[in-house]
Amino acid sequence: MRIGIYLMNKMLLPYDIVGGSFWLISVAMIGATLFFFFERSKVHVRWHTPMTMIAVVCLMSSVHYFFIKNLWVVSGSAPTLLRYVDWFLNFPMQVLIFYAMLMSVTKVKQGMFWRLLVGTLVFIIAEFLGAAGYMSKTLGFIVGLVGWLYVLGELYVGEAGRANAKCGNENIQMAFFSNRLILTIGWAIYPMGYFIEHLGGGIDVNSVNIIYNLADFLNKIIFGMIIYKAATQDTKSNV
Amino acid sequence: MRIGIYLMNKMLLPYDIVGGSFWLISVAMIGATLFFFFERSKVHVRWHTPMTMIAVVCLMSSVHYFFIKNLWVVSGSAPTLLRYVDWFLNFPMQVLIFYAMLMSVTKVKQGMFWRLLVGTLVFIIAEFLGAAGYMSKTLGFIVGLVGWLYVLGELYVGEAGRANAKCGNENIQMAFFSNRLILTIGWAIYPMGYFIEHLGGGIDVNSVNIIYNLADFLNKIIFGMIIYKAATQDTKSNV
Amino acid sequence: MRIGIYLMNKMLLPYDIVGGSFWLISVAMIGATLFFFFERSKVHVRWHTPMTMIAVVCLMSSVHYFFIKNLWVVSGSAPTLLRYVDWFLNFPMQVLIFYAMLMSVTKVKQGMFWRLLVGTLVFIIAEFLGAAGYMSKTLGFIVGLVGWLYVLGELYVGEAGRANAKCGNENIQMAFFSNRLILTIGWAIYPMGYFIEHLGGGIDVNSVNIIYNLADFLNKIIFGMIIYKAATQDTKSNV
Amino acid sequence: MRIGIYLMNKMLLPYDIVGGSFWLISVAMIGATLFFFFERSKVHVRWHTPMTMIAVVCLMSSVHYFFIKNLWVVSGSAPTLLRYVDWFLNFPMQVLIFYAMLMSVTKVKQGMFWRLLVGTLVFIIAEFLGAAGYMSKTLGFIVGLVGWLYVLGELYVGEAGRANAKCGNENIQMAFFSNRLILTIGWAIYPMGYFIEHLGGGIDVNSVNIIYNLADFLNKIIFGMIIYKAATQDTKSNV
Amino acid sequence: MRIGIYLMNKMLLPYDIVGGSFWLISVAMIGATLFFFFERSKVHVRWHTPMTMIAVVCLMSSVHYFFIKNLWVVSGSAPTLLRYVDWFLNFPMQVLIFYAMLMSVTKVKQGMFWRLLVGTLVFIIAEFLGAAGYMSKTLGFIVGLVGWLYVLGELYVGEAGRANAKCGNENIQMAFFSNRLILTIGWAIYPMGYFIEHLGGGIDVNSVNIIYNLADFLNKIIFGMIIYKAATQDTKSNV
Repeated sequence: MRIGIYLMNKMLLPYDIVGGSFWLISVAMIGATLFFFFERSKVHVRWHTPMTMIAVVCLMSSVHYFFIKNLWVVSGSAPTLLRYVDWFLNFPMQVLIFYAMLMSVTKVKQGMFWRLLVGTLVFIIAEFLGAAGYMSKTLGFIVGLVGWLYVLGELYVGEAGRANAKCGNENIQMAFFSNRLILTIGWAIYPMGYFIEHLGGGIDVNSVNIIYNLADFLNKIIFGMIIYKAATQDTKSNV
Repeated sequence: MRIGIYLMNKMLLPYDIVGGSFWLISVAMIGATLFFFFERSKVHVRWHTPMTMIAVVCLMSSVHYFFIKNLWVVSGSAPTLLRYVDWFLNFPMQVLIFYAMLMSVTKVKQGMFWRLLVGTLVFIIAEFLGAAGYMSKTLGFIVGLVGWLYVLGELYVGEAGRANAKCGNENIQMAFFSNRLILTIGWAIYPMGYFIEHLGGGIDVNSVNIIYNLADFLNKIIFGMIIYKAATQDTKSNV
Repeated sequence: MRIGIYLMNKMLLPYDIVGGSFWLISVAMIGATLFFFFERSKVHVRWHTPMTMIAVVCLMSSVHYFFIKNLWVVSGSAPTLLRYVDWFLNFPMQVLIFYAMLMSVTKVKQGMFWRLLVGTLVFIIAEFLGAAGYMSKTLGFIVGLVGWLYVLGELYVGEAGRANAKCGNENIQMAFFSNRLILTIGWAIYPMGYFIEHLGGGIDVNSVNIIYNLADFLNKIIFGMIIYKAATQDTKSNV
Repeated sequence: MRIGIYLMNKMLLPYDIVGGSFWLISVAMIGATLFFFFERSKVHVRWHTPMTMIAVVCLMSSVHYFFIKNLWVVSGSAPTLLRYVDWFLNFPMQVLIFYAMLMSVTKVKQGMFWRLLVGTLVFIIAEFLGAAGYMSKTLGFIVGLVGWLYVLGELYVGEAGRANAKCGNENIQMAFFSNRLILTIGWAIYPMGYFIEHLGGGIDVNSVNIIYNLADFLNKIIFGMIIYKAATQDTKSNV
Repeated sequence: MRIGIYLMNKMLLPYDIVGGSFWLISVAMIGATLFFFFERSKVHVRWHTPMTMIAVVCLMSSVHYFFIKNLWVVSGSAPTLLRYVDWFLNFPMQVLIFYAMLMSVTKVKQGMFWRLLVGTLVFIIAEFLGAAGYMSKTLGFIVGLVGWLYVLGELYVGEAGRANAKCGNENIQMAFFSNRLILTIGWAIYPMGYFIEHLGGGIDVNSVNIIYNLADFLNKIIFGMIIYKAATQDTKSNV
């Protein structure tokens, strides 16, 4: 006879800041999902796919956080490794939004699509293999870093960067510029977190969760808001 | 062997007024969410973003209340501190509806957006830090109060107030006027509640919950209904 | 160690007619909600708000019944007092549908809105206060009755009745006539139930639940179907 | 201290064919619901109400099967009597789809609506009263049979049949013909099942559930697919 | 007294790769469902039905994976036999997408519809009967194989293949070509998995689940993405 463990006490404590941050981000993701889906109908059709993509990112994230929040409530634990599920799905989606934006105003070669996708997958899969112990932790870190930097290179000085520079749509350029910054600074949290957790001195697991939760607010919701802002301004100047 | 605690008896008591008020507000929020989302399609496109925003406010609130109602049923406790999750997300959304309304009919500078956002965040974060004990309770109260008053100042006599005065759309002015009143009188519940709970003599936790639940009916649903009314009238006079 | 009570046996009994009626009405309400939301897109825009309102009534009712059905399954009890949550939200919505219908075809003064709303609230709040013991049971009954009769008066011979008589839209008049009848005869169940339960000899709690559940089928779903019928006929004669 | 019974082992057995058929049909109903709701937007407006109706039938059925599947998992039992909840709501809806189709292309008298509705209700209520023991099992069977045959009579040789014969829309006639056949042959399962269970020698309860589940695939999803097919063909020939 | 078994520990282990792959695929399916449903509104009406179909495939799959993921969490077991529920519903849907695409641009005989449907059903039902032990495992394998090869034959050299070759729409031809390849190579996993599990030496049940989960990513989501890509390109070249 085994009995299920439903311990809700943790969530009840007013000072469970970690649980609160899971709660916050799961509610925020649901709100963001619906916001992007509904406002999508209002913007120029050129922005429909990027808006759908960011909405789907928030949706998948909200489902993921709903699962992980329950896990936290039940067990008081939310291992970083489970976040790879979310990252594996949402990182490629987010990087490909750059491609989708460019494609809506200019001709881009399909090679860019594959380079961005593969770079992101290398980033996330190498980190996962390292973190889960299927690969040397150092090697996983380095290969992952290379993948991330490759994507940034493509967006700054590669074909994507150049296509953006001459696409002639300043709203797309604004979104491209701002979100590339988020990919540079905001996403730095992931290799940094990896380094500290696996190669550095380790870190308190509660802090890790709070930091990652807040990072997701920037890296997904603010990321999406920037696309939304560009979309509305572009729509206005096209009417 | 730990066993989950599912005590439903509280909810069963006909005289559990607190549980009833959670039940009521969670159902009301779901209804309001759908009402605003569906009626959004009917109003002038200028009102789509404010309508989406208020719908998302109600949606996030409904998810929040769904969580908190279950907590109440399970444990008979619903600490005020958890409400900050809701407030942290919904207060900025609601204050920015003023900005969204103005922007739909007139040119407004982006500075207003940031002032409203930062003022609201100061309000809610300072109160949270005080209430959770990360900051002196008195200091949290005072800083929070300043944030709230700053937002009101912006809406009454600041740039937002002036932009509203000369925006030339009487329906927006009506919604602006009424909802500013809700922000003044209805929202006074939050610093007052904070003061009584943390600086005054304290208060029965049941009364706190009932009062906050009813306050949310005013501060979110009636708030939204006023926007909806302005939106429908404006749509009618534009056809 | 307290343990949650999940007793499903009741629902399993083929002869649990009460549980079956909860099951039935909760499924019916979900179906009705979606029916009204989807068919709304098909009718004349003048009918969109009444259709949204009746859909939201059914939606809030479905959430409410979902909660209360679970309560019944878990505990074998579903106190009438919990129904006030549903009534408090849905009665005003339903009464205001009359106002929304009139407003779509003719000019009506806002006073009617407030009279209908306040009358309904007096009705439901007085009954609640009486039933919950915050007020003399007799007084609650009488004040509630007055509120209900006042609403009926407004709809029959008051401004609402007169506005309907001369609104010139026979489909609205048909819906007005039929649903006013539901408010007269169907809603009589509520003061009657109150009287029997609190002032008369009492009644078997199972019968109460079955009767209220079936009454909701008439008072919400048939009520909505009448609006839908008027809406489709009106749409047809306008094409 | 009573403890809830959550026995999932049944579902785990690869050979639980009954549980599998509940699982199958509940997933299928959800898929069918969304399929009909989304494809509705594509067909001629004349078909919107029949499409909504069949989607709502599948929706209510999916909620019902979701409930009943959980019951099966928890208790290993799913009494036929609970199916009357589903039948009570969905049979009238399905029969009235014939009326809705005719009404979209020709003038039909309201009497047909009431005859179809009352006939179906007699069918289902009499069977229910018999099965639940509120009426002689034989009488319930006979009265139910009369209701069903009356509906068939109306559809074959009654006013509905005649209106269909001269409605002049061959797609509606095709759907009318095919679905009338389903009502004749597919629905024969219900009186037959009743007869075997209550008047004949009885039947293994597992076989009953599998047969009814598969029957619902024909009687609801294939039924809906036929309407959908007629709707798309009719739409194509009208463009 | 029997007690439900809710053992969440499995999911908590960072190294539960099987559980993680269920988690991943269930989140991915929900995201894909919404992506296809929303982007459907953007593509040419000719593509609406294929888009709806692939969205419904992902939806039914997501519900299925939601069930099966919970099963895994609760019991640490997810028997392959349960996947037949998913396959029984989704395989025919996917194969019929070929038919739906052809029908949108050219005249196709209904016989093709039935041949594709029956071939797929033979494939899946024979495998099921073999796997569940209702038929010789070898016979089930062979008959299933014949069904699958028959479908492939129809798509490559049969009427479907010929209709595709001369349909004159290169986007449909691209989707037809790519997805036929998925049906050839990606779907080979199913007879191969059957062979290894039932006729070969057997295989570790964990590996089976991971492989099937990843296969579903290809066979459903990538399959859908190819349709989506063809749909958007076709829409662009038609504007």
